Amino acid sequence: MLGKMMYQPLLISSLIEHAAKYHGDTAILSKEVDGQITTSDWLTVSNNSKRLANALKALGLNSSERIATLAWNNRRHLEAWYAISGSGMICHTINPRLFPEQLSYIINDADDQVLFFDITFLPLITTIKSSIKGIKHFICLGDRDDSVLEQLPETLFFDELLAQHTSDFDWPQFDETTASSLCYTSGTTGHPKGILYSHRSSVLHAMALCMPDVAALSAQDILLPVVPMFHVNAWGTPYAAALTGCSLILPGPNLDGDSLVSLIDDYQVTLALGVPTIWQSLLTAAKNKGSKLTSMTRTIVGGAACPPSVIKTFREDFDCDAIHGWGMTETSPLGTMNQIKAKHKTLSEAEMNKLRNSQGRPPYGVELRIIDTEQLDKDVAEDGLSQGNLQIRGHWIINDYFTENLDAITEDGWFDTGDIATIDTDGYMNICDRSKDLIKSGGEWISSVELENIAVEHPQIKMAAAIAATHSQWGERPVLIVVKEQDSAVDETQVLDFYKGRVANWQIPDKVIFVDNILLNGAGKMMKNNLRDEHGDVLLSL
Amino acid sequence: MLGKMMYQPLLISSLIEHAAKYHGDTAILSKEVDGQITTSDWLTVSNNSKRLANALKALGLNSSERIATLAWNNRRHLEAWYAISGSGMICHTINPRLFPEQLSYIINDADDQVLFFDITFLPLITTIKSSIKGIKHFICLGDRDDSVLEQLPETLFFDELLAQHTSDFDWPQFDETTASSLCYTSGTTGHPKGILYSHRSSVLHAMALCMPDVAALSAQDILLPVVPMFHVNAWGTPYAAALTGCSLILPGPNLDGDSLVSLIDDYQVTLALGVPTIWQSLLTAAKNKGSKLTSMTRTIVGGAACPPSVIKTFREDFDCDAIHGWGMTETSPLGTMNQIKAKHKTLSEAEMNKLRNSQGRPPYGVELRIIDTEQLDKDVAEDGLSQGNLQIRGHWIINDYFTENLDAITEDGWFDTGDIATIDTDGYMNICDRSKDLIKSGGEWISSVELENIAVEHPQIKMAAAIAATHSQWGERPVLIVVKEQDSAVDETQVLDFYKGRVANWQIPDKVIFVDNILLNGAGKMMKNNLRDEHGDVLLSL
Repeated sequence: MLGKMMYQPLLISSLIEHAAKYHGDTAILSKEVDGQITTSDWLTVSNNSKRLANALKALGLNSSERIATLAWNNRRHLEAWYAISGSGMICHTINPRLFPEQLSYIINDADDQVLFFDITFLPLITTIKSSIKGIKHFICLGDRDDSVLEQLPETLFFDELLAQHTSDFDWPQFDETTASSLCYTSGTTGHPKGILYSHRSSVLHAMALCMPDVAALSAQDILLPVVPMFHVNAWGTPYAAALTGCSLILPGPNLDGDSLVSLIDDYQVTLALGVPTIWQSLLTAAKNKGSKLTSMTRTIVGGAACPPSVIKTFREDFDCDAIHGWGMTETSPLGTMNQIKAKHKTLSEAEMNKLRNSQGRPPYGVELRIIDTEQLDKDVAEDGLSQGNLQIRGHWIINDYFTENLDAITEDGWFDTGDIATIDTDGYMNICDRSKDLIKSGGEWISSVELENIAVEHPQIKMAAAIAATHSQWGERPVLIVVKEQDSAVDETQVLDFYKGRVANWQIPDKVIFVDNILLNGAGKMMKNNLRDEHGDVLLSL
Repeated sequence: MLGKMMYQPLLISSLIEHAAKYHGDTAILSKEVDGQITTSDWLTVSNNSKRLANALKALGLNSSERIATLAWNNRRHLEAWYAISGSGMICHTINPRLFPEQLSYIINDADDQVLFFDITFLPLITTIKSSIKGIKHFICLGDRDDSVLEQLPETLFFDELLAQHTSDFDWPQFDETTASSLCYTSGTTGHPKGILYSHRSSVLHAMALCMPDVAALSAQDILLPVVPMFHVNAWGTPYAAALTGCSLILPGPNLDGDSLVSLIDDYQVTLALGVPTIWQSLLTAAKNKGSKLTSMTRTIVGGAACPPSVIKTFREDFDCDAIHGWGMTETSPLGTMNQIKAKHKTLSEAEMNKLRNSQGRPPYGVELRIIDTEQLDKDVAEDGLSQGNLQIRGHWIINDYFTENLDAITEDGWFDTGDIATIDTDGYMNICDRSKDLIKSGGEWISSVELENIAVEHPQIKMAAAIAATHSQWGERPVLIVVKEQDSAVDETQVLDFYKGRVANWQIPDKVIFVDNILLNGAGKMMKNNLRDEHGDVLLSL
């Protein structure tokens, strides 16, 4: 027997409709590519997205066609998002930090029909234009600009399109499992892989994101998503913001510490989200400027393991709750968030700091498990100590990659994250390493992440990667690849001495190799597979 | 094109699975019918609900069959809930305050197969037993008790059933729109009407309930649902509690002020939910006991318009945020919640008090509109002043009544609440009156609720109902039915004088009728239709 309640599909358009109707005058501030701040609100964003929906229709575009964006976090990008997904098309947000050949690859792989772009990226587009022949329309996110037309004569302009169309548009209603958006992994190996989100997965994810045990988003918040909209949809915040009707501060291209401190203080931001490296520069800038970031009650840190010192500084010097989260492009990204339980309120300072360094626990909607790395059908104990392959399933977790013939999940329906982790009895998860980066020395594991974290604590080391080098006796042994600080004369012995007392002696790297530079991928992660190709045999020749 | 994310149905069983896995040791405290407090936790509740699911299966019960409960808020009732809905059966919670003939009616109308009951209700069951022949099994929520068997020899006992079965049970997976639970309206006119919730509507409602702009429920909370589980599923809190893994304090049968103050103080309750009359006795008891209810940071008040004085006392004397909510059995019940927006933070005390008396705004997932009372296709302006028929739609709003051939919604898909309301430009809604209780005097409306609120401010008036009496010149005029405080000698002139300056002169009732008692329905609401039948012609005979 079926229930007798109304059925409405969970569509992204319902989010912007809610914001327009109940939070129409709530401010959306946007830093444009020219550095100006413009003020809008949810009603205007909604109306403009409907104008654009009419424009896309007039251009002959159809539902399920892929529409790409190459843009910063700004209001036009937000309006394009809602217009595209709301119309039933698929919003493909592209990471401009990918290499040009990767950009061409994913635009062609996605079969993108339209490319919206910020003027910043015009040089990039002219570079790859000859290899992306499928794009029918290039739309510049701004008003008419002749200098753009000189380089890309067929360009249409966002503001002109809006001016040509009315906001009289009814969002189509369709199956909630319809595809809404597409992101590609940055990929440290092989081609980037597409993840195709649905309306249902995006809306349920947005609801979960707002929960008090996740981002605790409310209409009292002034939200600054520093994480780009091309990184897993800014972790879903533009959807969650409309769902709650909070105020949005869109930071545009300038993500340096000084710019962010100004935005936070000028607009009384209550919550900002970003990656650890950005947060380190924010803290430095705030200290230099003498700002206490007083409006900011909490911040969510994800994208990479956050150094404990960053969490501590936020708490102690800025009275700001720094909350560790974990997720991936394949997980929309919300996997875990480090929020405490009632029983933790009485923890000592030291115990609380330890808890706070964990990646946190899953909210309702996702589940985790850890699996033996050798016997793939064997669960590993969730005791906070035993390590295993981290797997996840839930409403907003990938089932298949966009690209055909590319399996994403196990036979029994879990996504293997490629991470090695522990889970404790309360569900708090700790990432130990990427499984492919773990160093297996004589049957024991050494975490490359741990060795790297220690190395960068050394004042003369700028960047370090620990890789597994093949070893005739132990199978693998750690080798440390180091980029020194400028003018540093630190040598191998000094670096190795630095490990003494910090890790067990058998975990200390066998060798240090100094290099000028370590290549980063589009997401700012070290391309350790290249290093391993180059240096993986170094211990065999000793 | 469909998205490529995992699909899992939104089932109630997934809530208890989450709580058991990630919040297994979080306390569930339960005041039993004998006054003892027992301690359990989410893992135990989950295991017991699986034992009971096995027991129900062994009794030969099938999915979609209706299983009734006649019980207080306690742990066994909670376990029964999850066992019934989790198994795919329909949990029919019965309000024991209904008249016996109404109880028989709804048990037969629902075709209930099993009746779980607290021993408190044994006399009620023996009274109606001969008229509820469809019940195959009576299950007492307790351990074996021979005194029960003397009166109802076929009784099975909950604790014995659990002991006979293991917790080895996999929750079945099925369509998320499957019916999960059934509540009947208390009904001031006609037969009670059944509302049949689905798994999807219940889970989405629970997610919405947890939002910071609704109940802001988290794993840090210790939740006391004073509102009974037979009143719209305790407003959905037992589902929301499992979803967040918060601690639950189930208060059992004793809902007097003293008992509640003790529970709040002894178990450090952070959030309690209940109706205004209960809250008034709670505040009196707290003052008498000298309790400051320090652990309670907020309370949600619903079920009836809350006197402003109650909200003010909570805030000023107990530093507790009293949050006004509105909903109905047909709306699961979450319709609106009075939570502020960022722009309200700078309101003056007086402006804030005014805002706080509104029933609040709808969360994402429901929409409101107000419709002209004469021209039913005409929207009324949402200006905070214009009144109209309040209509609602959304994921957890009724589409049809359980009983066949009983339409619930308008042609264009909205549920008419039967309330007259205003909505302001920010979406904040104020209930003015039930549409059938409004008094239409010479084309102008007079709110019966407003007249009643003023009457009960008079120290010598215990209860008052304002009804529309037929009038030869004005169509209708207000007449006030009054129950005096004991030994009071207040007379008609004094009562009418009390209105001067409090309402416009033309709104003052034409007549006061003193009675010994006003009949209440099962939900504690005055049965004004009876009064109108009796006194509706009183002005014609003048």
